[in-house]
Amino acid sequence: MKLSLFTLFLLLATVALARAEEGMYPISEVGGLGLADKGLKLTPEEVFNAEKTCLVDGICKVNGCTGSFVSPHGLIITNHHCAYRAIQSSSSTTNDYLRDGFYASDLGDEIPAKGYTVRITESFQDVSDQVLSAITPGMSYTERTKAIEQRQKELEKSAEKKHLGQRAEVAEMFAGKTYVLFLYTYIQDVRLVFAPPASVGNFGGEVDNWEWPRHTGDFSFMRAYVAPDGSTAEYSKDNVPYQPKRFIQVEPKGVDEGDYVMLIGYPGRTARHKTASFLSYEQDVRLPYVVDLYQWQIEKMQQAGKGDRAIALKLSSRMKGLANVEKRSRGQLKGLVRKDIVGTRSAAESELQTFINSENARREKYGDLLKDIAAVYAEMESSQHELDVQSLRSASRLMYFAFAIYDSAVERQKDDLERETPYMDRNIDLTRRRLMLAVKDYHAPTDRVILEELLRRLRAAGDKTRDLAALLPSEDSLDELYSKTSLGDPEFIQACFDKTPEQLAAMNDPALAAIIGLYPKYLELREQSKSREGKLDQLYGDLVTVKQEFLKQKFVPDANATLRLTYGHIKGYSPEDAVYKFPITTLGGAVAKATGVEPFVLPSAIIEKHSQGDFGKFMHPKLKDVPTGILYDTDTTGGNSGSPILNGEGRLVGVNFDRAFEATINDFAWNESYSRSIGVDIRYALWITGNVFGANHLLKEMGVE
Amino acid sequence: MKLSLFTLFLLLATVALARAEEGMYPISEVGGLGLADKGLKLTPEEVFNAEKTCLVDGICKVNGCTGSFVSPHGLIITNHHCAYRAIQSSSSTTNDYLRDGFYASDLGDEIPAKGYTVRITESFQDVSDQVLSAITPGMSYTERTKAIEQRQKELEKSAEKKHLGQRAEVAEMFAGKTYVLFLYTYIQDVRLVFAPPASVGNFGGEVDNWEWPRHTGDFSFMRAYVAPDGSTAEYSKDNVPYQPKRFIQVEPKGVDEGDYVMLIGYPGRTARHKTASFLSYEQDVRLPYVVDLYQWQIEKMQQAGKGDRAIALKLSSRMKGLANVEKRSRGQLKGLVRKDIVGTRSAAESELQTFINSENARREKYGDLLKDIAAVYAEMESSQHELDVQSLRSASRLMYFAFAIYDSAVERQKDDLERETPYMDRNIDLTRRRLMLAVKDYHAPTDRVILEELLRRLRAAGDKTRDLAALLPSEDSLDELYSKTSLGDPEFIQACFDKTPEQLAAMNDPALAAIIGLYPKYLELREQSKSREGKLDQLYGDLVTVKQEFLKQKFVPDANATLRLTYGHIKGYSPEDAVYKFPITTLGGAVAKATGVEPFVLPSAIIEKHSQGDFGKFMHPKLKDVPTGILYDTDTTGGNSGSPILNGEGRLVGVNFDRAFEATINDFAWNESYSRSIGVDIRYALWITGNVFGANHLLKEMGVE
Repeated sequence: MKLSLFTLFLLLATVALARAEEGMYPISEVGGLGLADKGLKLTPEEVFNAEKTCLVDGICKVNGCTGSFVSPHGLIITNHHCAYRAIQSSSSTTNDYLRDGFYASDLGDEIPAKGYTVRITESFQDVSDQVLSAITPGMSYTERTKAIEQRQKELEKSAEKKHLGQRAEVAEMFAGKTYVLFLYTYIQDVRLVFAPPASVGNFGGEVDNWEWPRHTGDFSFMRAYVAPDGSTAEYSKDNVPYQPKRFIQVEPKGVDEGDYVMLIGYPGRTARHKTASFLSYEQDVRLPYVVDLYQWQIEKMQQAGKGDRAIALKLSSRMKGLANVEKRSRGQLKGLVRKDIVGTRSAAESELQTFINSENARREKYGDLLKDIAAVYAEMESSQHELDVQSLRSASRLMYFAFAIYDSAVERQKDDLERETPYMDRNIDLTRRRLMLAVKDYHAPTDRVILEELLRRLRAAGDKTRDLAALLPSEDSLDELYSKTSLGDPEFIQACFDKTPEQLAAMNDPALAAIIGLYPKYLELREQSKSREGKLDQLYGDLVTVKQEFLKQKFVPDANATLRLTYGHIKGYSPEDAVYKFPITTLGGAVAKATGVEPFVLPSAIIEKHSQGDFGKFMHPKLKDVPTGILYDTDTTGGNSGSPILNGEGRLVGVNFDRAFEATINDFAWNESYSRSIGVDIRYALWITGNVFGANHLLKEMGVE
Repeated sequence: MKLSLFTLFLLLATVALARAEEGMYPISEVGGLGLADKGLKLTPEEVFNAEKTCLVDGICKVNGCTGSFVSPHGLIITNHHCAYRAIQSSSSTTNDYLRDGFYASDLGDEIPAKGYTVRITESFQDVSDQVLSAITPGMSYTERTKAIEQRQKELEKSAEKKHLGQRAEVAEMFAGKTYVLFLYTYIQDVRLVFAPPASVGNFGGEVDNWEWPRHTGDFSFMRAYVAPDGSTAEYSKDNVPYQPKRFIQVEPKGVDEGDYVMLIGYPGRTARHKTASFLSYEQDVRLPYVVDLYQWQIEKMQQAGKGDRAIALKLSSRMKGLANVEKRSRGQLKGLVRKDIVGTRSAAESELQTFINSENARREKYGDLLKDIAAVYAEMESSQHELDVQSLRSASRLMYFAFAIYDSAVERQKDDLERETPYMDRNIDLTRRRLMLAVKDYHAPTDRVILEELLRRLRAAGDKTRDLAALLPSEDSLDELYSKTSLGDPEFIQACFDKTPEQLAAMNDPALAAIIGLYPKYLELREQSKSREGKLDQLYGDLVTVKQEFLKQKFVPDANATLRLTYGHIKGYSPEDAVYKFPITTLGGAVAKATGVEPFVLPSAIIEKHSQGDFGKFMHPKLKDVPTGILYDTDTTGGNSGSPILNGEGRLVGVNFDRAFEATINDFAWNESYSRSIGVDIRYALWITGNVFGANHLLKEMGVE
């Protein structure tokens, strides 16, 4: 059999005929997808069933990621990068788990993962009517947004009263149209069980991030703990492993090219139903802004961490996060341009507009719809100073601390339901915990460099930002500000949380004072943003209605961090003319990349075992090597990190952790030709855990002998 | 037929069994290569024949590149980047041929390509004995080098006396062992005939440079002119097109995957016979130095050219050159490490050492050979200041002008044969012409920035460089130096050429004064370098002798800018795990890349013709598109730019212009798995020339109807 240039073209032609596998389906729709024809061997009821225990009960959310229970004792498999913060914050220069990996030989050795929670979906129900009944005619956009927000909060509160110990959250499925109330259990005692060294878990680092072929062992094991009576509880040494209703069986035989796979998880945000005007805003304004902002932030942090491992450790998690978004944004920018996503969507909207105009009543109702939406984004395009104000809080830790403290104090003066969501009684603990975690990342000299640059930019950018800058300290005063502020001190921050706005003002902390000075402007911008949100909610609600009339088909709602299923196949692709990428990588490929220069350093044990052909039972029968990465055409986005890759029998064959560079534009438009997601092959994870690091008790716990 | 992951592995296994196609063979060896079995349809005598007109007579050298005569009227096809300087220097902001392309509708419109010469190889003979007889026992290494140099010059001079109008050059084939005297005709009136816009000829720019897949239309047409009597002559409007003994027929049907191809050209330098110690020096010292030096030079030039097209044009050719070498050097560094070239060569040397030690007489003679060679490179490793001194001349144009003028004045005090080669009577005109061409690139403010940085680095680098820096002007005095020097003025430089060293010193030009101050140090370093060269010559001569004893086979000498033939096949490759690259790209691929953002801007005429499927007769029958780039496993290096890609019938199917990124280490080690060269498909060149730009008279001249 000869591989030639022309087989590539034959293959691509075949692929083009195959049915598109787009869709992050709400889990309740699994019955209507005809998955038996695609390769699913389970019944839809075995996958999801509101009444009985099913596959979905084995899935959980681990902070912003997805995880799978893989044993009856609460053992969770997720990504290395999802456990990264836990590994980082328990690492020191003497016990460097980030560098060396971590391995608990029994339950007692497992390390509390501070700031981590595991969320389990207990049930959900449609509450659209209840939410939308809060709207009355004649409301302004701001009033509308606030009314919807408040009704959501009421529904959540009352649901939580009914279901003690559970958490209720209303999710907007279609903006301004459909709402679903989810009931969740939050487990608060989560521990780190096993993490490979970063040289495996983050092999290839930022160079390989968002790239295929991939050889990253991006997996880790954590464990959920509950009180001895089974209720959720804060960390205690008396807690016991949580017993999930169901766990997912790992499949040590793995998967092969062409096989059916499905992912279940909590994809974050997509924008498939947004307009061309939104995409233009992303392409012309927001994405270039983010790329620029993050690039120089990363640069400053790199400089700060050079030659000082302690500072580098402190900053590593944030840098990783920034670099990840920066590269994704670059990929999106490239893809938006190369694939002319804006042009394609504009063309579709022209057809829609023609349909709207074709009937008088319809034209009257929806004739200005697209124009009105475009006007909102046009307004945002001319308000770049809003991005600057956001950056101030996101890029400077000190400004973030000051803002979070003061905003919280102001909000907590209000009635619970009137407050911004993070400061409601039911959320305030989580908000505080997140803040205290962020304090761990704080490095004053780096923060000062970043704040100075932000201020310089604010002053240079234009009239609106100059006015903002005038409310802020001058660059000259920063030495004094950083030497006098106490906001780097966790205890001081804790203490601030109990104070009123007046008490905070009286403390004369220069960082707090800076934010207090800016605060009225912040409030103004927040109102403005709520007004826009309300307007867009209503307009997008109408857009979905008229699009459904036009296309006569149901849509899958954009991702919104709720439970979704997506399916596809293990499949290669041609990212460009004359190139074909195959869907399974090998340990041999990792070893070939391992130059010994960061980020391509593999532990010597792995290189040795590879050269000895010591693959145990994890060798791919045809490739004669341990498979490391797998590629598939399911529909994923951020939040799908850690999602189980399940075969037709519902067994776990890998853990999803990334997308190919071309697939960064998945968020805007899915396409069979470029949408590919990347997972670590379970065989690599098991080989690393058992054969290389000797944690065979974990393999046994998962039922792998 | 299904393309699967496993066909890739089958293919790679097959490839590994195929006979390696390494070798840049001296043209005289073509008879011994068994090319009929590989796919050559011509007899070896039809390819090369010292007595009769043959294919090789259609090949010429165009400055540093190779070219092919493609019509009986001196029409030459070469690369766009080989004609770049000619296009650039005839471009202005009003007549921007670089941006818009150039097209002479008849002979009268053709533009003189100043500084260009076309060299034709007339004959060659082995003169090793004559050269080596210049060496007498007891000579120091410096004396040895000088004796060899002088003998070469004598042979050249006397050959030129015998063959009036021709130029003689002795080339060292194996260092210290074999020498060949070549007789060349130099045509001095060369004109630009056709160049596509840089958006085609340099499509993809530095982003795609050294990369496959490639879509660059890197071709141009020039023409050689001679006096009406057929003798070579400077430009005159009375000159007539040169009639080559033989021209190469272009093949509008092109080539296909798997086809036999061969290249004939003038590859520059390779280091296949050098030691592991040399490779270590490259890997650890010289290549990182070059990458760093060139990166910041490029950065400074980019800054200077921003927003000023005239300055950008002035600097564009140098920047292109620097960027090209910078990226190649990065590729080489990566490849040296990833492929462990040093380790492989060390292992081979260990075997050789064992062979040497296995016999007393042999050990006595060659026992210290590898150690002695390594000692020379060790000495170079500890002499980084020599690189700094070289950089001073290569990076600062002003320092280069001053040096060239003063060095020339000093050398021309000596007898002709005693001089450094560039200043001999037979070479001085060319040397001057090159200098005058370089003056066109001079932009004082940029040069000043670069010189300042060089001086700063010299002072910072260590004791040896600090001593050098002390001989040079301080950074503070640069404003004065640049405002007072006249060395940016072409007329002043011309005038300087007739002066003695004493007269130059008396002129009190501060740039000249700087070089005069440094000159004794330069001479010292030159002597040192000649001494090393002499030592290495002798040692490498011995190395070839003992390696031949050991391996019992003939070697192909390293490339040395003399005429070579290399053969191979149109063939894809797998640059890394899970990736396969096919060997023919298409216009469709170019259009997909053409975002409209530099360097990916295609003329709209091309995009339109592509969307209309207007491919004329240049469509690939199976790909249903115009092929743009082709990939093949012949053995090439710099200097092969512009080489004809010839099919088995000796017809031209493309023009070579680059190598794949992995193949940058060709210079050190050829390998079937990664050594791939890149050419523009003749069908693309003809389609662009005829169908897009309408220069059908050129197609007719080449016999394409």
